[in-house]
Amino acid sequence: MIFKELDGGLSVIDNLKVAGAKEGKYGVAVIVSENSDASAVFTSNKIVAAPVIYTKKVVEKGKVSAVFVNSGNANCFTGNQGIEDCESLVELVSKELNIPKGEIAISSTGVIGRKMPLDVITGVASKVFSSLGNKPEDSLAAANAIMTTDKIPKQCALEVTLTNGEKVKIAGITKGSGMIAPNMGTMLSFIVTDGVMESKYINKALKKAANKSFNMIVVDGDESTNDTCLLMANKASGVNIVNDGEIDPNFQEALEYLCIDLAKKMVKDGEGASKVIEANIYGAKNIDEARLAAKAIVTSPLFKSAVFGGDPNWGRIVSAIGYSGADVSADTVTIAIANKQDEVDLVKDGEILAFEGTDNLLRAEKIMLGEEVIVNVDLNKGDGEATAWGCDLSYDYVKINAEYTT
Amino acid sequence: MIFKELDGGLSVIDNLKVAGAKEGKYGVAVIVSENSDASAVFTSNKIVAAPVIYTKKVVEKGKVSAVFVNSGNANCFTGNQGIEDCESLVELVSKELNIPKGEIAISSTGVIGRKMPLDVITGVASKVFSSLGNKPEDSLAAANAIMTTDKIPKQCALEVTLTNGEKVKIAGITKGSGMIAPNMGTMLSFIVTDGVMESKYINKALKKAANKSFNMIVVDGDESTNDTCLLMANKASGVNIVNDGEIDPNFQEALEYLCIDLAKKMVKDGEGASKVIEANIYGAKNIDEARLAAKAIVTSPLFKSAVFGGDPNWGRIVSAIGYSGADVSADTVTIAIANKQDEVDLVKDGEILAFEGTDNLLRAEKIMLGEEVIVNVDLNKGDGEATAWGCDLSYDYVKINAEYTT
Repeated sequence: MIFKELDGGLSVIDNLKVAGAKEGKYGVAVIVSENSDASAVFTSNKIVAAPVIYTKKVVEKGKVSAVFVNSGNANCFTGNQGIEDCESLVELVSKELNIPKGEIAISSTGVIGRKMPLDVITGVASKVFSSLGNKPEDSLAAANAIMTTDKIPKQCALEVTLTNGEKVKIAGITKGSGMIAPNMGTMLSFIVTDGVMESKYINKALKKAANKSFNMIVVDGDESTNDTCLLMANKASGVNIVNDGEIDPNFQEALEYLCIDLAKKMVKDGEGASKVIEANIYGAKNIDEARLAAKAIVTSPLFKSAVFGGDPNWGRIVSAIGYSGADVSADTVTIAIANKQDEVDLVKDGEILAFEGTDNLLRAEKIMLGEEVIVNVDLNKGDGEATAWGCDLSYDYVKINAEYTT
Repeated sequence: MIFKELDGGLSVIDNLKVAGAKEGKYGVAVIVSENSDASAVFTSNKIVAAPVIYTKKVVEKGKVSAVFVNSGNANCFTGNQGIEDCESLVELVSKELNIPKGEIAISSTGVIGRKMPLDVITGVASKVFSSLGNKPEDSLAAANAIMTTDKIPKQCALEVTLTNGEKVKIAGITKGSGMIAPNMGTMLSFIVTDGVMESKYINKALKKAANKSFNMIVVDGDESTNDTCLLMANKASGVNIVNDGEIDPNFQEALEYLCIDLAKKMVKDGEGASKVIEANIYGAKNIDEARLAAKAIVTSPLFKSAVFGGDPNWGRIVSAIGYSGADVSADTVTIAIANKQDEVDLVKDGEILAFEGTDNLLRAEKIMLGEEVIVNVDLNKGDGEATAWGCDLSYDYVKINAEYTT
């Protein structure tokens, strides 16, 4: 075992303090991890929120000591006022926690195009500053505070045994429920390790992990303006994660596991979601095409509706991979539907095995009625492989998003 | 007036016979327009249905005398059997109507991945062959027969006055309700003019019209395997539409009007749709970027849900154009929401006018509650303009698609 799961979220990391509080639809979380090396990945949306613009500049310098996050208002499309609001909050955090302004990252999630209610946010913030701690309930409070339409707080913590036998910890909290896709969705994720790792390596490790996790989940196909995933290394363990210029492979594997775990928790808690879809593509021409095909399946509103209804309408898988942009031929493709107990071939090397009335279609229907639907597709075109995760499209998705601001 | 609307759908065209019938979920329509020059546009999905493969070859020769359409089964992903079934149907049509096999187009819509129930289809077909006529009810019966989840039959007919004063007619029927987007969606459209026009000009005119109409509508973002839009010119009027190598501009304008009219009828009848969304983009860098931005708005599940709920959550418009791929800047964009009675600026040259509690937001909410929501966006980047149409995302969309095959 190169890593094991721990309870307690961010609280497993030494030299870290965290807290969170909510008041009505507004929440604040603060993570203090002094003198951390850091890097982050952000949304690729061309309209980005003020805190993304602000925090990009902070992170470029490679050092973050505290993160201030608010939910309820995205501080997006708020012009100069938005940047000024970021600066006011940073000034507040700096004064309260005695941290240099240049080492404070800021992050927001919530409604776009509304001014920040600074008085409300600072009111909640004052409670958070006074309750910073390093107990499991502190991490949980932070994970709770950053939720918007999320129903459950999401966190994950691991202890990793590096290749040289030394141990480091890594832990993260995340929020995200709608607007998840195609790149990072509306998600905020804050991950801390107690290992030693310069920001350029953090950047490399994080990008690789994000491409296999946060960038492979879809709730609805919308992409947010505020997405941020920040990884900090606070050196509390004194253990080097990078040796001779190489990131320890066990750490990389654990980071990817943690990111995938957080990502899967997001789709499971997707707006209105009642089921999780996993799409595995094998045999694509290359990895990029595999990613396209995997994401097309978990994005298709028609397939997502079919999963909601438990309808084994696998023609919609065919249709989705057909328009995905990946190279697909009707006479080579193999498609199976599975869950943990069963796997049934629907199409084998282009030959249909699940016509009306067949046993295969009945078994597929049984799988489709379950809470987890796995789609395995072999395109038989090359070596490209990828996995994407998504959720079904339900009445509740529509209900939640028809009534969001009103 | 260069054209006027007529009643009667395809029946307004001389030398044309049409009929349709349904039996349970299966329908058949036949259009006989002998010795027509023809061209068509098809789905760009890489998995295409057997009738698309078959009909592409027929249309390449530029001549179509009859179209046989069935609903209820898409004859897609049916391998060699699917092509054989097309051939059987063409043989039947050829024998019944005494038309050369090479001039018969075939089209299917319905469930993907199920073998064609040929006995049922030929049973319905026999009724259709015996009832071919040229009365308004015959066209309506055909428009009805090709429906799947459509609620209303869709047809349009125009009389066009060409630039030289001569008159031609143009008429079409269409079906399409879900899987509409991004290119042609699940739609079948059969258009006939009584003018004289060689297939290469038909191809040119149809492509231009389809790009402004069928290729600019979105119900759900899924793209079908069976889309076909066929335009036939049967020369019954003896009037040339092409003179000195130029397509008469009045005809082109009328054809575009007809295609847009049929396209809008499709989104209005989109699965579960209760409202129509029109997105107009101005000032894009170029027309391609305008098309991307316009389609992103009518595709966004979040904005579509907001329209369903009458929620003026215009941040979702910002987010959608931001990830559309078009060049967008927060400080230059102007966004307005409108209906036929009112237009209200939400953002003007980057400045927000619709904060909480403003009169603008209240007026926007009133517009969002109506049955038609128009979004006008000026990107202030160039001269590119485009319009896209879509519908809201409702509980009924989910219901219809959760229960489609079961």
